Amino acid sequence: MNITTELSKALSESGIREGILLCNAMHITASVFINDAESGLHQDFEQWLEGLAPEKPHSSYRHNDTGEDNGDAHLKRTIMGREVVVAVTAGKLDLGPWEQIFYGEFDGMRRKRVLVKIIGE
Amino acid sequence: MNITTELSKALSESGIREGILLCNAMHITASVFINDAESGLHQDFEQWLEGLAPEKPHSSYRHNDTGEDNGDAHLKRTIMGREVVVAVTAGKLDLGPWEQIFYGEFDGMRRKRVLVKIIGE
Amino acid sequence: MNITTELSKALSESGIREGILLCNAMHITASVFINDAESGLHQDFEQWLEGLAPEKPHSSYRHNDTGEDNGDAHLKRTIMGREVVVAVTAGKLDLGPWEQIFYGEFDGMRRKRVLVKIIGE
Repeated sequence: MNITTELSKALSESGIREGILLCNAMHITASVFINDAESGLHQDFEQWLEGLAPEKPHSSYRHNDTGEDNGDAHLKRTIMGREVVVAVTAGKLDLGPWEQIFYGEFDGMRRKRVLVKIIGE
Repeated sequence: MNITTELSKALSESGIREGILLCNAMHITASVFINDAESGLHQDFEQWLEGLAPEKPHSSYRHNDTGEDNGDAHLKRTIMGREVVVAVTAGKLDLGPWEQIFYGEFDGMRRKRVLVKIIGE
Repeated sequence: MNITTELSKALSESGIREGILLCNAMHITASVFINDAESGLHQDFEQWLEGLAPEKPHSSYRHNDTGEDNGDAHLKRTIMGREVVVAVTAGKLDLGPWEQIFYGEFDGMRRKRVLVKIIGE
């Protein structure tokens, strides 16, 4: 889920011209990350993460002994990262040519929430 | 090792109400990361990291040719991350409902040290 | 490629004494990361990343269906991270004893560019 437009809007509303923007997932099975807006790449990410931290069998994760079934999602989100910090220059997100900001959720059942903090002047 | 309480204390002492807190490991075989305070999950992290970057044989890492035996610890810490950046709102760490901040050391013999930097007003 | 000296220079020129420095790759197949300046370790990183996200066969990545051949580089950079945030104290980068800042490019053909943003006073 591409959240670049929402973050740009939040930045405009803040009135901040020079500084940094922090955006992080508030759930520990989710990630905010920066990469290319290309759907093939996002399929590659999913398949690759499933290889590195397979969801099943659920019994292979001690976390799932607590009654959860999302042990794998905690590991997947660790690979993708919790947060991004982006420079703000002249009132805009200072992103590279292909950089877009995404929210990824690795445990299907959670409400999606991010925190945005902008500091500067 | 859960360091959330220590960081909250450092934040209170700083008197900063709005801004960000940076916390990073000062050792390159250690990590500061955010996840759930659930001991099964931390066992899962250890086992998973050992699968992705096994400690042994020591000879499989060129870094260990220098006389070290912690090549794997540098890779494990790379997966877990060096630093976290957390929003500060109304004088508190602005964490999601399950977010707790941890220090993890992947090479048993080092003294543990983190750097905390808080900016804002 | 060790960029610590260039970043220290940028910091001196900014005149900022207390704050933070953000440095990120502007290309989504590249990484800015902190680790030890030891060449064996950097060989270990390369070999390890190639194991986790092999370049070939190119056809194993859906991203490469677009005509690219760098699907693996996007995944490798995700492991290594896009950005670092470093504390600035008394006008210097506040690095641990072995911490050095590196730029890594995982797709050979791109021009190297980083963004540096320093905030503070």
